[in-house]
Amino acid sequence: MKEVRIGFVGLGTVGAGALAALTAEPETIARKAGTPLRVTRAAVRDPELPRPVDLNGVALTTDALAVATDPEIDLVVEVMGGVGLAREVVSAALRAGKSVVTANKELIAKHGRELFALADQHGADLAFEGSVGGGIPIIAPLGHGLTANRVHQVVGIINGTTNYILSAMTRSGQPFDQLLAEAQAKGYAEADPTDDVEGHDAAYKLTILAMLAFNTAVAEEQVYREGISSLQPEDIALAHQLGYVFKLLAVAKDRGDRLELRVSPCLVPEKHPLASVNDVYNAIFIEAEPVGQVMFYGRGAGADPTGSAVAGDIVAVARNLGRGGRRGYPLAFDDQRPVATLDQIESSYYVRMRIVDRAGVLATLAGVLGDHGVSIAQVLQTAHNDCDCGCDCAGAELVWITHHTTEASIRDSLSVMRGLDVVNCICNVYRCFGVDGD
Amino acid sequence: MKEVRIGFVGLGTVGAGALAALTAEPETIARKAGTPLRVTRAAVRDPELPRPVDLNGVALTTDALAVATDPEIDLVVEVMGGVGLAREVVSAALRAGKSVVTANKELIAKHGRELFALADQHGADLAFEGSVGGGIPIIAPLGHGLTANRVHQVVGIINGTTNYILSAMTRSGQPFDQLLAEAQAKGYAEADPTDDVEGHDAAYKLTILAMLAFNTAVAEEQVYREGISSLQPEDIALAHQLGYVFKLLAVAKDRGDRLELRVSPCLVPEKHPLASVNDVYNAIFIEAEPVGQVMFYGRGAGADPTGSAVAGDIVAVARNLGRGGRRGYPLAFDDQRPVATLDQIESSYYVRMRIVDRAGVLATLAGVLGDHGVSIAQVLQTAHNDCDCGCDCAGAELVWITHHTTEASIRDSLSVMRGLDVVNCICNVYRCFGVDGD
Repeated sequence: MKEVRIGFVGLGTVGAGALAALTAEPETIARKAGTPLRVTRAAVRDPELPRPVDLNGVALTTDALAVATDPEIDLVVEVMGGVGLAREVVSAALRAGKSVVTANKELIAKHGRELFALADQHGADLAFEGSVGGGIPIIAPLGHGLTANRVHQVVGIINGTTNYILSAMTRSGQPFDQLLAEAQAKGYAEADPTDDVEGHDAAYKLTILAMLAFNTAVAEEQVYREGISSLQPEDIALAHQLGYVFKLLAVAKDRGDRLELRVSPCLVPEKHPLASVNDVYNAIFIEAEPVGQVMFYGRGAGADPTGSAVAGDIVAVARNLGRGGRRGYPLAFDDQRPVATLDQIESSYYVRMRIVDRAGVLATLAGVLGDHGVSIAQVLQTAHNDCDCGCDCAGAELVWITHHTTEASIRDSLSVMRGLDVVNCICNVYRCFGVDGD
Repeated sequence: MKEVRIGFVGLGTVGAGALAALTAEPETIARKAGTPLRVTRAAVRDPELPRPVDLNGVALTTDALAVATDPEIDLVVEVMGGVGLAREVVSAALRAGKSVVTANKELIAKHGRELFALADQHGADLAFEGSVGGGIPIIAPLGHGLTANRVHQVVGIINGTTNYILSAMTRSGQPFDQLLAEAQAKGYAEADPTDDVEGHDAAYKLTILAMLAFNTAVAEEQVYREGISSLQPEDIALAHQLGYVFKLLAVAKDRGDRLELRVSPCLVPEKHPLASVNDVYNAIFIEAEPVGQVMFYGRGAGADPTGSAVAGDIVAVARNLGRGGRRGYPLAFDDQRPVATLDQIESSYYVRMRIVDRAGVLATLAGVLGDHGVSIAQVLQTAHNDCDCGCDCAGAELVWITHHTTEASIRDSLSVMRGLDVVNCICNVYRCFGVDGD
C-alpha cells in the first residue's frame, strides 16, 4: 500500500486532537505505521467554523456518508458521536470494506455486536480504544495482553466529570450543586450534565469493558445505575472518619452463573489504589487469574488524551492495512450470561440513619441486621443533630458499614427498621468496594 | 492453519505459569486465538523433575536447539533465561521462520536489535511482553496504544525484590541487611541478590522501555546504576519527615539532544501515584504528548503474572499465524541519540550531612550551594547525634532538598563542602523525583 488515505467524520474536540497527534511528526508516524498516512477528507457540520488544526490538503464536506463510502478512502475515523448518523456511517464504511476507528462509547455499547459482525463479514478492522478511559490504553490490554486470563472483576473510575466533582467535594466539603456549577464553568461538565452525573456515560463504558472481559454480549440497559447527585457532604465527611473516600465506580463482576454490572457512588478504603485517583483522572482496576491485580491510570477525556487513543488506533489499523491484514478483536459473544438483578447484588454497605438517642436502640437495630444475616464491620454513632439529608429528621446519627451481604438483605433490613419508632430516618445507603477482599 | 504447534524452551517458574494459563481453559483460548493451540514439545534441563503442570502430550527433551529448529513446531516460547544458549535458541527459531515469544529481559536488552532484525528478515514475530513488569501489559501499550505520542519520560518501579525490601524498610524502620534476609527466606530475593539489589535487572528493563519509548537503540551499559544497599533507615525516616518515600526508580527522560537513563533509589513525594506502589507490585509511569500522564500497575514478577504476559503473547502470535500475518513492533532504531553522562543528569537532590553545630554554619553551606547555582527547596536540621552512616562522624544532622540542578553542580558543591572544617561528613546523596514538575 503506497499510502493509507483517511477520512474523518467529525472534527470536534476528539477529531481535532487525533488529527493534531497524527500530523505533529508525520515522518515518525509513517515509520511506525510502515506507510505514509494522508487525511484527505473530513465531514463536518459547518465547514466555515475555524478549527485549531491545519486542514491543508483536507477536503471538507457536510456529507458524512459520502466520506464513509468514498472509494478513495481506506480508513474512516468516526468521531462525530451519537448513535443515529454515526451508526449509519460506521456500517456503510464497514460494508464498503473500509476499516473504521471510533471513539464512540454509546455506539459500541449499543450496537457493538452488530458492528463487529459487519467488520468480520467484510474483512475490516473496527478499533475503539478511545471509547473508554480517554488516553489510557485499556481496550487492547484487556482484549489482547490479558487475553489468557479469566477475569474476576473490572472496576473503573471511568467518568472524569463525576470524579472531578467528587474530588472537589472531598477536598472542600462543599455540596454537589455548587461544585457541579464550578465544573461547568471550567468546561469539565456539560450544560446538561445528566449523562455524566447520573452515570449513563460510565454505564456505556462499563458495557464495553464487560463485553471484552467476559466475552459476552451485554446491553447497556442491564447495568444498574445510580448517579452522584444525592450524595451529601456529610456522607463524605463520615466516610473519611471511617477511612474511606467516595468514588463513582463502574463495577463488572463474574459471579459464576451470572454477571454483576453496576455504576454507583461507592466507599473505597483510603489505601486502595483506586482511592488516590482524583480530579479528571480515570483508572481501571482489573482482578484476573493468573495475572492478579492490575490497574491502568490516566486522563479520561479531552482532546489530547482521547486524540492520543484515536491516533494510536489509526496507526495500528494503517499498519494492518499496509500488511494486507487486519487485527480484529477476540470478541466472542456466544457466552450469553444472565445479569444479576438489583436484589442479587453482593457488596458491603454504608448506611446512615437518624435514631432516637436512648438505651437499647443500637442493640435493637443490630438485631434487625443480624436477623437478616447481615454482619457488621464498623459502627459510628455521633450526637450531632443537624441533618442535611433533606428531611426534617433529628436524633443521633448512626452509620453502619456491613460485611458482604446481598442487596436484598440490606433492603429487607432497612424496610423493617423504617417501621420502628426508634428510627427517624434512613438518610443514605451506599455500596462499599475493597472491603472483605473484593 | 489447523492448529498452532508450540515448543517451550524452559519450563521453570515462568514457563510453567504460561503453560498453566494456556491450558486452564483451552477452548476459550482457541476461540480467542482463532485456532487451537497445542504444546507439543518442551526442552528442559532435567526431564525427571516433577513439575506443577500437566505435561500430557508434551514430549520432553534436553536439547533446546532441537525444539527451536523442529519443523513440526510453529511457535517457540523461550523461557529459559540467560543470554548464551537463549540467544542461540531464539536466533535459530527466527532463522527457521518461526515466531518467538520470550520473557527474557537480559536477552532483549542486550541483543534485541539483532533479534528484531532477524525477525523482520524472516517474516516472524518476536513478542516480549513478559520481559518488563511481569503481568502488566506495558510493551504493547507503549509500542502500539501510545505510538502516536512523543514520550517525555518513562519512570518505573520495575523490580519487585527491591520494592519489597524498601516497602518493608519504610514500614518497619529495620535495616537493609535484615530485610534482605527476610525477603530471601520468603523467596522474594535470590540467594545471590546482586542482580536485583544493585539495579541490573531494572537496568535491563529500562533499556527495553527506552528503546520502545524513544525509537532508539540503547545499550544497557549506558544506564547509570545505583542499588539500594547503602540506604539507611535514617534516610527513610528523614524522607518521611519531609513528605517523601524511597523507591528504586528506573528513569528514562528525553532531554532534547540526549537521553537520560538511570536506575537509583529516589525520593518520591508521598502524593505521587508511584509513592503508593508497595511490596512486590510494579508500576510504570509515562508522561507523553498528547496523552499526558498514564500509569500501569500490577505484580511485577512470578509464575502467575509473568505467565499471564507470556500466554497473552502466545495467543496474539498464534492469532497472527492463523491469519497468515505477523504483527511486529514499530521499532525504529535509526534515531541514535546520545545518552547523558552522570554529570549531565538533571534532578532535584536530597543530601544528608553532619555539621559542626555553631552559628553561621548553615549560612556558609547555603552559600556554597548558591555559588554553584543550586537553589534550596527544603532544609531540615536536627540536633540528634548518633549517625548510622558507618563513619565516626558526629554533630548536628542537616538535610537539604534542592530544586532542579545538574549532578555536576551538586558534586562540585559537595566537594567544596567536604573541604570545610564545619562539615564532618556527607552521609548520603539521593535524587528526588516528582519535584519541580518532573
